[in-house]
Amino acid sequence: MPVVMTKSLGVVVLAVVTSACGPATDRPANAAVSSNAQPGDALPSWNEGPAKRAILDFVRRVTREGTTDFVPPSGRIAVFDNDGTLWAEQPMYVQLAFVLDRVKALAPQHPEWKQKQPFKGVLEGDHQAVAATGEQGILEIIAATHAGNTTDEFTKVVSDWLGSAKHPTLGRPYTELVYQPMLEVLDYLRANGFKTFIVSGGGVEFMRPWTERVYGIPPEQVIGSRIRMRYEVKDGNPALRRLAGVDLVDDKAGKPVGIQQAIGRRPIAAFGNSDGDFEMLEWTTSASGPRFGLIVHHTDAAREWAYDRASHIGTLIRGLDEAGRNGWTVVDMREDWKVIYPWQK
Amino acid sequence: MPVVMTKSLGVVVLAVVTSACGPATDRPANAAVSSNAQPGDALPSWNEGPAKRAILDFVRRVTREGTTDFVPPSGRIAVFDNDGTLWAEQPMYVQLAFVLDRVKALAPQHPEWKQKQPFKGVLEGDHQAVAATGEQGILEIIAATHAGNTTDEFTKVVSDWLGSAKHPTLGRPYTELVYQPMLEVLDYLRANGFKTFIVSGGGVEFMRPWTERVYGIPPEQVIGSRIRMRYEVKDGNPALRRLAGVDLVDDKAGKPVGIQQAIGRRPIAAFGNSDGDFEMLEWTTSASGPRFGLIVHHTDAAREWAYDRASHIGTLIRGLDEAGRNGWTVVDMREDWKVIYPWQK
Repeated sequence: MPVVMTKSLGVVVLAVVTSACGPATDRPANAAVSSNAQPGDALPSWNEGPAKRAILDFVRRVTREGTTDFVPPSGRIAVFDNDGTLWAEQPMYVQLAFVLDRVKALAPQHPEWKQKQPFKGVLEGDHQAVAATGEQGILEIIAATHAGNTTDEFTKVVSDWLGSAKHPTLGRPYTELVYQPMLEVLDYLRANGFKTFIVSGGGVEFMRPWTERVYGIPPEQVIGSRIRMRYEVKDGNPALRRLAGVDLVDDKAGKPVGIQQAIGRRPIAAFGNSDGDFEMLEWTTSASGPRFGLIVHHTDAAREWAYDRASHIGTLIRGLDEAGRNGWTVVDMREDWKVIYPWQK
Repeated sequence: MPVVMTKSLGVVVLAVVTSACGPATDRPANAAVSSNAQPGDALPSWNEGPAKRAILDFVRRVTREGTTDFVPPSGRIAVFDNDGTLWAEQPMYVQLAFVLDRVKALAPQHPEWKQKQPFKGVLEGDHQAVAATGEQGILEIIAATHAGNTTDEFTKVVSDWLGSAKHPTLGRPYTELVYQPMLEVLDYLRANGFKTFIVSGGGVEFMRPWTERVYGIPPEQVIGSRIRMRYEVKDGNPALRRLAGVDLVDDKAGKPVGIQQAIGRRPIAAFGNSDGDFEMLEWTTSASGPRFGLIVHHTDAAREWAYDRASHIGTLIRGLDEAGRNGWTVVDMREDWKVIYPWQK
């Protein structure tokens, strides 16, 4: 039984994973690419269908001046989960791959790790042993891989890693494993006066170094889990030191809190893919006025992965059960998306 | 000896205040208004002088493409303190006036307050008695006036109060007591591709209801002190409940932390007026590349107030002592500003 880490405490925890996921393939997208695209089609990688129609209809509604549904540009706030919503999260969260590589990279400075769990387990690939150390073990791994350095140093570590790391089965840089149809939604919303934010359970400083380049979302519009920081000045040089303590777990009921801390008003559109996004969708869509909620349902075992209720990554149960009642749009990845990744266009 | 609250714990604490401040007057601005303004002058309420020149020079430097000092628009982040930098903070912080009024408004629901400190002292105007209750008393006042309700309810309370409250000596709504020269700086920076943020020791949810209307700064660009929140759903209605616990004190060394949490990169320009802004100025201006720091020095006892080293509100000691060494611009309010408030134009 494979074991991977899933999210909690703002970064990662260990969990035994089911094998509900389909195989990953790197075969090119199907031949239908672009066949439905109309001239001027804002969402060319989306097949015609209820999901595409719902997105277009919502944006038309809120941008039509003089109607009761009109929302002025300042109120056009859209929030997006990251893992599984904007980029792939299988076979493990990208940040977990970073953590595992980081432990290996730091191991020469820590000879004691060879005999000490949870590091011993990470170095030997014995994930059961890592899982056995529980939450305390996770906190030790987070402290060792995410804390102690400064924000500038951590940004460099993340950037360097992303510049060389490759997805274990697709063999491509992780930043190429973003969803082309969602990039088009981001562009389409921004072209219609929306401000787009990421609201992720992942670490905020793990995302900020690359979100502007990859998604067009600047650092100040990225909300995520975070550890504590302390301002310090040494020899006249100020720095923000990253500390081994969790400050915000931006997941589940933590997402509306993270949204309010950073944005200060309720979004009118939310996009997610797992039950970690439920409260964000609920908070966004339960206020008055036009609201939009969307769940990316991973149904494509051939082109991406298929997983939902039984998966420990991107678990999706309540979202599926309550989407209809809540008026949320559920994207059937296999049916609705012509391509998955930008390089398949 | 008058006693007022000064900031700490993200909101307010009590402190005995010196009487170093000059009297407030509501006499119209001097006759020099606009006399120096050139056609197309971006800062018409600023007299010609080193402060105005420094602002204009900095903005020209970073916006000139093809030069080494050029900063692309995405990096043009400017941060502004609020109390004493964008609006008046004498004879007491506006948020303190709110707190005192709020205790009075809530008193009928709390008959026990008539006999119970620190509320008894607030109701009777006995600020010495309030001060005697120390930090515990302050926490009780914050809990009673800022917590317990939802974010939506608190926003309404703040908006209603600001709609009717008047400055004790100037007799005007507080939102009219903003500094016209600083409004021009905000506009000038934004016209040159800057994103402007507030970074205040005051409560973030106390500012967000009005900063967009008054400063052109939307809620998501307001950083401030905050209390904890909890997401809750009652009878199908989600809400964010404000809790009696401090989450961030966005003052002094807390300002760079608040900046990093919300913005995720270092600003290139910072504007403050007190030693509560020292670390924000230091963090902003100590990195490589063109940087700008500015301190508003309250030197105008006739048109506004004059205070610095000996004042418990807006204490300014280290900022004055180290501004020269750090290359920060110090605004002499009396000499540099043609008018103080927008209604004096």
